[in-house]
Amino acid sequence: MTWRFALVLEPAASDDAREDFAAGFREIDPSAPALSVGELSTQRGDGIFESIGVVNGHAQEVAAHLERLAHSAALCDLPTPNLEQWRQAVTVAAAHCPADGEGVIKLILSRGVEHGPAPTAWVTAAQAPDNTVVRERGVRIVTLDRGYGIDTPARAPWLLLGAKTLSYAVNMAAIREAKRRGADDAVFVSSDGFVLEAPTASLVLRIGGRFVTPAPNGGILHGTTQLSLFEHLAVQGRETAYETVPVSALAEADAAWLLSSVRLAAPISAIDGVAVAVDRELTASFNEYLLSPRT
Amino acid sequence: MTWRFALVLEPAASDDAREDFAAGFREIDPSAPALSVGELSTQRGDGIFESIGVVNGHAQEVAAHLERLAHSAALCDLPTPNLEQWRQAVTVAAAHCPADGEGVIKLILSRGVEHGPAPTAWVTAAQAPDNTVVRERGVRIVTLDRGYGIDTPARAPWLLLGAKTLSYAVNMAAIREAKRRGADDAVFVSSDGFVLEAPTASLVLRIGGRFVTPAPNGGILHGTTQLSLFEHLAVQGRETAYETVPVSALAEADAAWLLSSVRLAAPISAIDGVAVAVDRELTASFNEYLLSPRT
Repeated sequence: MTWRFALVLEPAASDDAREDFAAGFREIDPSAPALSVGELSTQRGDGIFESIGVVNGHAQEVAAHLERLAHSAALCDLPTPNLEQWRQAVTVAAAHCPADGEGVIKLILSRGVEHGPAPTAWVTAAQAPDNTVVRERGVRIVTLDRGYGIDTPARAPWLLLGAKTLSYAVNMAAIREAKRRGADDAVFVSSDGFVLEAPTASLVLRIGGRFVTPAPNGGILHGTTQLSLFEHLAVQGRETAYETVPVSALAEADAAWLLSSVRLAAPISAIDGVAVAVDRELTASFNEYLLSPRT
Repeated sequence: MTWRFALVLEPAASDDAREDFAAGFREIDPSAPALSVGELSTQRGDGIFESIGVVNGHAQEVAAHLERLAHSAALCDLPTPNLEQWRQAVTVAAAHCPADGEGVIKLILSRGVEHGPAPTAWVTAAQAPDNTVVRERGVRIVTLDRGYGIDTPARAPWLLLGAKTLSYAVNMAAIREAKRRGADDAVFVSSDGFVLEAPTASLVLRIGGRFVTPAPNGGILHGTTQLSLFEHLAVQGRETAYETVPVSALAEADAAWLLSSVRLAAPISAIDGVAVAVDRELTASFNEYLLSPRT
């Protein structure tokens, strides 16, 4: 991702690190030095983020992303984000995405410079990679053990499993492991045999006409794109459900997709080296919806 | 930590991101912007680090830290660090630590700017906080579930449990949880009841005259300070052992310490709210050794 635009949100004029950000931000050069080595985002992966898809200049599902940013901040004991300031920053960033085509806006809220007075917050915008092929042909996935039991997140909130933190080294390592195995992406499974999510996407299965996603029980990020697709399916009169999904359901499903803000709906075409059927027509209808302006 | 000195290691003059760093580095202002928003360390916690203690200008156990840096790099599929370049950078940084007193040098190797040609690497130096009181009075710890079974790391290397990555949000959250419970620090335990390590320190127990630390089986960082202390104890003719340690051993031990590069030996004075005996004399002898020049 080559960022073509970036801005830093100005912190409140206060020594109180728990204070909300005041309104206001300043544009910066996305390729120039902007962060000091004292930044806790860079020293400790200590912060949170969101990635927002942009279609023809329209930022998708902004309210849902901002809501999740605030949720992650609460889980990580970060100051409550000033969502109006962030919303305005997204509007400015969207204007720097392609007017015709797809873009991506990233929001980052770091704990700031160590012992500093306030968090650091910035927003970047870029042209999105071309995902046309992957939306049609799909992704080959491998299942990888996430190491946790399905009931772990609820009893150990310090593991931050429901927060979208900057500590994504494991997510990136899982994708490298998938590629090493000749696949494109991974799906994490719990150590006790339940399907969770992909490193950077949610999972949706079609099982006998029902659309099912693993329940976001604290260990799974609640995907904004999955949420939006479920609303769309409900309007069409289709049945949707949040469930505890055993790993066996993955191979038995009629069809399955990875859903994320920028790649949108990528049909799963192989699971652990075994090809599975892709529903091209239904996938195309999902992406047609997901590429329409959504709020 | 207020960094008083920083330098960036120059990458090799090559488009090959897998190439080693060439010799050479340049000093930067540690409080000025130095890193771009495209840095994967800051976007993804995608990189590794080491913290080296410095006593009266002497950097401690440099070889062991560099060896662990190379080990972490291999686990994370990062280019093999040019250890001679890093060693020279540590020498320069040590000269900027207090000549009389304690300092800390931090090494960071990031995957670099997204789609960039090479990793980013930098070294910082600072005066260490005054740890005199904590070395004498000790730390109150709480045990926190790390979520994994003891055998998880060996079967799931993509969880990077033996690498010292920048993705430390969980480690920081565990320390916040400990403070919320009225303690000073945490000790992680496996979901199946074995003692692991502290978020930023190793654990050593004295059990009936033997000194025992949890075996670094892939899920625990092998502590450089613990390793150094064990060498010292062996020279003194004391018995040391790496073992699988059940949680019950923590309360039953004659004494216990958290060991780390900068705080050194901190005796454990309470476990989950129950006071335990501190061996002040032995602790003082540990820290006398740990404060002596070590290579």
